[in-house]
Amino acid sequence: MSSMDEILPAAIENTSGDPERRRRTTGGRGGDRGKGRKAPVTLRYRSILNTQEPSLLLSPEGIDAIHEASLTVLEETGMDFMLPEARERLKAAGADVRPGVERVRLDRALVMEMVGHAPGPFTLHARNPERNVRMGGRNMAFAQVASAPYCSDRDHGRRTGTQEDFRNLLRLAQSYDIIHLSGGYPVEPTDIHASIRHLDCLSDFIKLTDKPYHAYSLGRERNLDALEIARIGRGITAEQMELEPSLFTIINASSPLRYDNPMLQGIIEMSSRNQVVVVTPFTLAGAMAPVTVAGALVQQNAEALAGIAFTQMVRPGSPVMYGGFTSNVDMKSGAPAFGTPEYMKAVIAGGQLARRYGVPYRTSNTCAANTLDAQAAYESMMSLWAVVQGGGNFVMHAAGWTEGGLTASFEKFILDVDMLQMVAEFLAPLDVSEEALAMDAIREVGPGGHYFGTQHTLDRYETAFYSPILSDWRNFESWSLAGQPTTFDHANRVFKETLASYQQPPLDLAIEEELDAFVARRKAEGGVPTDF
Amino acid sequence: MSSMDEILPAAIENTSGDPERRRRTTGGRGGDRGKGRKAPVTLRYRSILNTQEPSLLLSPEGIDAIHEASLTVLEETGMDFMLPEARERLKAAGADVRPGVERVRLDRALVMEMVGHAPGPFTLHARNPERNVRMGGRNMAFAQVASAPYCSDRDHGRRTGTQEDFRNLLRLAQSYDIIHLSGGYPVEPTDIHASIRHLDCLSDFIKLTDKPYHAYSLGRERNLDALEIARIGRGITAEQMELEPSLFTIINASSPLRYDNPMLQGIIEMSSRNQVVVVTPFTLAGAMAPVTVAGALVQQNAEALAGIAFTQMVRPGSPVMYGGFTSNVDMKSGAPAFGTPEYMKAVIAGGQLARRYGVPYRTSNTCAANTLDAQAAYESMMSLWAVVQGGGNFVMHAAGWTEGGLTASFEKFILDVDMLQMVAEFLAPLDVSEEALAMDAIREVGPGGHYFGTQHTLDRYETAFYSPILSDWRNFESWSLAGQPTTFDHANRVFKETLASYQQPPLDLAIEEELDAFVARRKAEGGVPTDF
Repeated sequence: MSSMDEILPAAIENTSGDPERRRRTTGGRGGDRGKGRKAPVTLRYRSILNTQEPSLLLSPEGIDAIHEASLTVLEETGMDFMLPEARERLKAAGADVRPGVERVRLDRALVMEMVGHAPGPFTLHARNPERNVRMGGRNMAFAQVASAPYCSDRDHGRRTGTQEDFRNLLRLAQSYDIIHLSGGYPVEPTDIHASIRHLDCLSDFIKLTDKPYHAYSLGRERNLDALEIARIGRGITAEQMELEPSLFTIINASSPLRYDNPMLQGIIEMSSRNQVVVVTPFTLAGAMAPVTVAGALVQQNAEALAGIAFTQMVRPGSPVMYGGFTSNVDMKSGAPAFGTPEYMKAVIAGGQLARRYGVPYRTSNTCAANTLDAQAAYESMMSLWAVVQGGGNFVMHAAGWTEGGLTASFEKFILDVDMLQMVAEFLAPLDVSEEALAMDAIREVGPGGHYFGTQHTLDRYETAFYSPILSDWRNFESWSLAGQPTTFDHANRVFKETLASYQQPPLDLAIEEELDAFVARRKAEGGVPTDF
Repeated sequence: MSSMDEILPAAIENTSGDPERRRRTTGGRGGDRGKGRKAPVTLRYRSILNTQEPSLLLSPEGIDAIHEASLTVLEETGMDFMLPEARERLKAAGADVRPGVERVRLDRALVMEMVGHAPGPFTLHARNPERNVRMGGRNMAFAQVASAPYCSDRDHGRRTGTQEDFRNLLRLAQSYDIIHLSGGYPVEPTDIHASIRHLDCLSDFIKLTDKPYHAYSLGRERNLDALEIARIGRGITAEQMELEPSLFTIINASSPLRYDNPMLQGIIEMSSRNQVVVVTPFTLAGAMAPVTVAGALVQQNAEALAGIAFTQMVRPGSPVMYGGFTSNVDMKSGAPAFGTPEYMKAVIAGGQLARRYGVPYRTSNTCAANTLDAQAAYESMMSLWAVVQGGGNFVMHAAGWTEGGLTASFEKFILDVDMLQMVAEFLAPLDVSEEALAMDAIREVGPGGHYFGTQHTLDRYETAFYSPILSDWRNFESWSLAGQPTTFDHANRVFKETLASYQQPPLDLAIEEELDAFVARRKAEGGVPTDF
């Protein structure tokens, strides 16, 4: 390695800036280090295409079996739709709805006719058009952790979230281009009263980020506030927003086999305005779903198809995604488990089902770890493996999720960003051009030599390989002299560096004023009344 | 979860033994916990079939380009074969060999004719026939870490290895069926003089394990000792051993483009007796190979094909594997990097090349981490992802490798065993039988219920899911009360429990006596003289 020691420091000295710092805070191709510009690094991951062929975990017959079984569930057992207005729409569309009864049965032909109206790939628009996200096809998009009641970092421990935590997590998400959108509140800011929390949070999404974001379906009034805020944020008319989906909502079934009022209201308000609905049953095998992965998939598919069908009853052609969130529980304790072999199978089979229906597929990067240890990494990496091989289009909770979603970890966010960037690098096509084959360099070096000093190496060494944010590749002795830092230590340092270098994206002053005025007015009106 | 809390403890109480302890020491399907029998757990992973279709990272044209370029390298640049006897054999086979010159050029037709003699899948025989390992096709086999100069555990730190460390690592490997064979000395036992080290170590492989193992090619005499010890260990004649490959050796090129004397002697001694040769160039892109992954693959393929061709010149039809070990270096420091996106691409493309030649494919589970942190897990998990999607048949260093191979970690061994078992569970086919689809259970539970108490769940909960060795799925509060243990803590405890419960496999007394007599005689003769 001695030649390397001679050549590279000299080469690196010729660049300006502080390469180590930049490497630690942004990652990316080595060539962006020390160049005094950050943009190319962050641009690299704006658009990810999945070049891997989806895995075929199930045979066509296996997929058929799950498909047919789920349609039989909807036909014979049916689902509870709690909202009367939803049942009226279901009845009008031809479902078997009886007066005063929540249970609705849908025959297979009706379900498949409605699902057939769902569009394929679509674009979710951001206030900055460069941040628009394409959903479906070969596209992959990553959203940061959402809906955690707690957050944690090693300096301050695990705690309920505040507005400041919420904002800091948004700042992290904005800082890395591999995070394409926000998937909900990364942590619940419990110091804001629930009646006005959505107003402050949605306003922050617009001010602190320029990427697409999510609105919770927690009642019609909050949906309407969110739609208006999204319109204001993009500076467009309601009519244009109907042509350009600009907001999304996650619709979870109350598994098994039930949709409650706020979820059905959410579909009605969002789908009727051509905004994005992500239908996601949360089917833990052994708890709210059968103990077998296949059985849990039958239930997931029944719930997903019913939800998707309902969106198309509300508005045919409105953008919708098939969400899979089937995992297993620890049968000793009932605790949810994530990133398991069973989770991998469910994710991959779920992708086969979503593609059968031609509907973009939503998945998640999950783990059950309580800290940033090896478990956090292997469970998340197994999730990502499944997501890639399953053809997942939209990965919720892609960065920061720990404890099965209970906690948004600042350090885990950085770990996940590094792992997502590695996935993106893996998916970048392998160059087999004449120059990449390096025949001249091989001739030049010949047997017994080395490539450190060849022109072929010098031309490429800065950009040849992904330079991880966290991986510590020093030898044991150097690493020991540095205090034997772990990945947790590095991630703790990097998230603070990232927050320190955060840059707020520019926002048109007129938009900001309109947004502030709307939020102030709605707050003055009391926001959305709560009973607490 | 309250129903679960009521049902499961009662069900678990009906079983005997200490389920927690067994879970921690063996892992496996939950149903084997608390049953007072260990065999089903260990039998589960004896034979692993890769059910995933190999990824097609490169197009057929891309594979052709690398293939043709590598043949051009062998034809135009050639390789250095340092051993005169090898050059004589190469010349006799038709290669371009000139008197007194190490450089040998091989034309493409000769290379491909010889590679065409290589057999496809073959069986590597163990002294216990139940431990025979099938190499090639859809089969996957895992070997523990090999050739580390250091070992480490958290109690004793990082240190040069001793015979006791060596033996303890063999005991760990014997204890888990997911480890199918040994891949060399897991750690170099430096307290045994090099002249007799191979005698003691090979003897230990036979006595402490009943699985196949490896012999280093460090000169003809050691090869011959190893062959005789393997014959004695299996209790067969030399003639029968020629029919049943019972020993393997790793042959590394001295990249770039050179085979040295001991490696070539190893091929001659092993292939001529129909034993297994695993040809593995070690081609670090940017150091001993071109800085591009494609260029490194050209060189890897040239070196591998030359080595494979040479085995078939020695004995057509002798068992041989295509080894890929292309990774990249950290271009800042020259340090080798492992488990990177570039490594993944090289592993998967290498599989496409190996399958093109119909030769079983050897890969590795690598990482560069210095401790058992998140990096150790994500780099290894990325390696395993690549190995599975690349169709790797034989995974060297599958358990215990850290620091880029410099250190065999007792804790990492357990982490890897857990990850390998998760990979095996992922590869087990998903049951979509009528009963697995759980239609009756879904009808029974209906909307709004739960599955904890259904007969379908009670019939399956013990065996439904993989029960990890290390994953800590307790909630944050319970985990905190337990002292917030990390994966490292759990692995430290488990490896010691595993060593405490190690059971030496039975060995025929006559074989043991013959083995001891041979080792004693060879030691009396001075073993293999060294110059130190």
